[in-house]
Amino acid sequence: MKGNLIVAQSGGPTSVINSSLLGVIEEAKRNRRKIKNIYGSLNGIDGIINEAIVDLKKEKKSELKKLRYTPSSILGSVRKCLPSDFNEKIYTIILEVFKKYDIRYFLYIGGNDSMDTVQKLSEFFKKVDYECFVIGVPKTIDNDLVITDHTPGYGSAIKYIANTIKEIYYDTICYAKGRVTVVEIMGRDAGWLTAGSKLANLDDCGPDLIYLPEVAFDIDKFLQDVNEIYAKKHKVLVCVSEGIKDKQGKYIMEQSAYANDNDVFGHMQLGGAASVLTHLVKTKLNLNVRAIELNLPQRCAGHFNSKCDVDEAYMSGAAAVRFAVSGLSGKMVTISRVESKKYKVTYSASDIAEIANKVKTLPTSWIKDGKDLTQEFIDYALPLIEGEERVNYKKGILNFAVLKKILVKRKK
Amino acid sequence: MKGNLIVAQSGGPTSVINSSLLGVIEEAKRNRRKIKNIYGSLNGIDGIINEAIVDLKKEKKSELKKLRYTPSSILGSVRKCLPSDFNEKIYTIILEVFKKYDIRYFLYIGGNDSMDTVQKLSEFFKKVDYECFVIGVPKTIDNDLVITDHTPGYGSAIKYIANTIKEIYYDTICYAKGRVTVVEIMGRDAGWLTAGSKLANLDDCGPDLIYLPEVAFDIDKFLQDVNEIYAKKHKVLVCVSEGIKDKQGKYIMEQSAYANDNDVFGHMQLGGAASVLTHLVKTKLNLNVRAIELNLPQRCAGHFNSKCDVDEAYMSGAAAVRFAVSGLSGKMVTISRVESKKYKVTYSASDIAEIANKVKTLPTSWIKDGKDLTQEFIDYALPLIEGEERVNYKKGILNFAVLKKILVKRKK
Repeated sequence: MKGNLIVAQSGGPTSVINSSLLGVIEEAKRNRRKIKNIYGSLNGIDGIINEAIVDLKKEKKSELKKLRYTPSSILGSVRKCLPSDFNEKIYTIILEVFKKYDIRYFLYIGGNDSMDTVQKLSEFFKKVDYECFVIGVPKTIDNDLVITDHTPGYGSAIKYIANTIKEIYYDTICYAKGRVTVVEIMGRDAGWLTAGSKLANLDDCGPDLIYLPEVAFDIDKFLQDVNEIYAKKHKVLVCVSEGIKDKQGKYIMEQSAYANDNDVFGHMQLGGAASVLTHLVKTKLNLNVRAIELNLPQRCAGHFNSKCDVDEAYMSGAAAVRFAVSGLSGKMVTISRVESKKYKVTYSASDIAEIANKVKTLPTSWIKDGKDLTQEFIDYALPLIEGEERVNYKKGILNFAVLKKILVKRKK
Repeated sequence: MKGNLIVAQSGGPTSVINSSLLGVIEEAKRNRRKIKNIYGSLNGIDGIINEAIVDLKKEKKSELKKLRYTPSSILGSVRKCLPSDFNEKIYTIILEVFKKYDIRYFLYIGGNDSMDTVQKLSEFFKKVDYECFVIGVPKTIDNDLVITDHTPGYGSAIKYIANTIKEIYYDTICYAKGRVTVVEIMGRDAGWLTAGSKLANLDDCGPDLIYLPEVAFDIDKFLQDVNEIYAKKHKVLVCVSEGIKDKQGKYIMEQSAYANDNDVFGHMQLGGAASVLTHLVKTKLNLNVRAIELNLPQRCAGHFNSKCDVDEAYMSGAAAVRFAVSGLSGKMVTISRVESKKYKVTYSASDIAEIANKVKTLPTSWIKDGKDLTQEFIDYALPLIEGEERVNYKKGILNFAVLKKILVKRKK
């Protein structure tokens, strides 16, 4: 069936989500027999509801190619969950817009929560017998989607993390004076990102201790570990996930002075684990200590993109278009690692019902003594940060893509 | 006079201080007629006192060339002030070591406090009639040394800051939901680093408000500014120096929960201005707000080095050697901008007495309405971030220089 395609971005930004968008656009252009117009919905599903729809064929090629390293969702993002009841008015609105714009292919680039939308919309369209093929393109720095070997966005995030940790390591060792440095890394319930700090250690220039949410955090053991390493080296570099919890499952950061608001999905906005640990090292061990929170740059440092990750993000977007035009719906693109000497992957379409609302944590067998990672993790993660994406600068400043975002004339 | 040269690094790390070291080593090798051995003192002046002296001629060329982008002081650093009284025992120790090792050229790469050491040692050697030529090589991300147009280290630091702010800007605008983001940037008493965030704004992708220590910070005016911009744009990006003070000269961060220790120079270790402002925006304006502290990567992000800065750091080191062998002492290398269409500089030797212990703040005429920078600042700063230094990676991880640091056999 020939019709129009719409693509949208949802959830937290990554530095390669726009590379997936580029993959969608370019593959859609190659499928003229099935795809007429290529639309973009601004701010995820909200752009469909509000008819904030742009014509992506009108964008300049020279700007589009910069999407490979332009971070954050260039079409805008949203955090929104669709209701479970298909009788809710929002579904009628969406269906009307899809019909008006003759949209037959819907590609949603997003993470866990966005895949819930893919699942619901594909089921809804089936139920009301509207022919539309809905495919999810995975995106999250958190690497917590199931079935897929890893998610686009993760490789660049840990490339940023590992290399920044290595730079911080160099900074911390330059004085003879003793110092403990605690670096806080993103990751609510899965330690994938914090584990990435281990890659800085290939030359022994990385963290001494790595704590992940997968293992209960024991404050006394932590203080003992710090003390032992300090006695030997006079320098301790600790990498800690924002989401570390004690034996009772209570977040360590909850012991900090200010509590944070909840976001719309009910996840707690974390931050503060490093400052709690820093406070402990200072008061209990009386050592010179500094807290560093890597913060937003972890997900938006486009200048540090891994070429492997950018390529895979692009290929995931392109594969999604191929799956959609081949008549698949209610699927997410998943990446499988091919058993071979050289790192190689294939792209498949997996049932969205098996993926949405599920979380993949780091295998605990990859965690050593609750404070280190095994060689298996290194073998898994290292290929994902391989290669440096070429980035353009203008007068020393990053030259990111600027899109015109020309709105499609509202249909009656 | 023919003799040995010793070089040391002191004060806070930068990402180009090792490029200055490379300039010293390579220029010293070119001066065989005057310079016999090229020594490095580990951890600044402490390496001389403790005879932790390495032979820099034994380092591999392939590792040395990586010094151009290897951050932090590869010879180790120190924070130490020499006493004013030349009768103190430490001067006798230093003189003995200089004599034993026949050191006739002493180059000290450092900032404000290190130049005090250059001044004292050059005066001391003169007083005791020991022929040794002492030259300072400027280094500080703070850009607060007088006479010199700017300091090596500053360009790369603001290149990191401006580009990271641009990436954060992209991240903050992707949701339709309103948000205030407050980014804290280093700089105790001078706003040079925070001002650098303005360069992100060349494409209108940068801060809305910039607050520097040079202008008294008014909390009510700040809240009013945030409110006005929020009403128009729904997004506010604030860049704030860690050292902003109120009308009474009291640091804003002192209103934070924890007080910090003083370092050996009596400067207060700052950090926390952003969290104070964030707290104010939340409680007084009831807006969605996030604090980001750029922290150590500002001074150690070697992968983001400005080529202009790396070249100038190198040339400053090389010039220092030339000045020393020409018989100058008690001088610091200063950079002067040549009046011409294209950015161009020259290197001079300036009297250390005019430089040590003085601080250059940002001209207040370059500050607009207490919350923005003028075109004059942009014209000043932009050439300093020009060009990207080529960086090597090994399996996706930064490949920094590793020196052997072979100790010179202790002389009797």
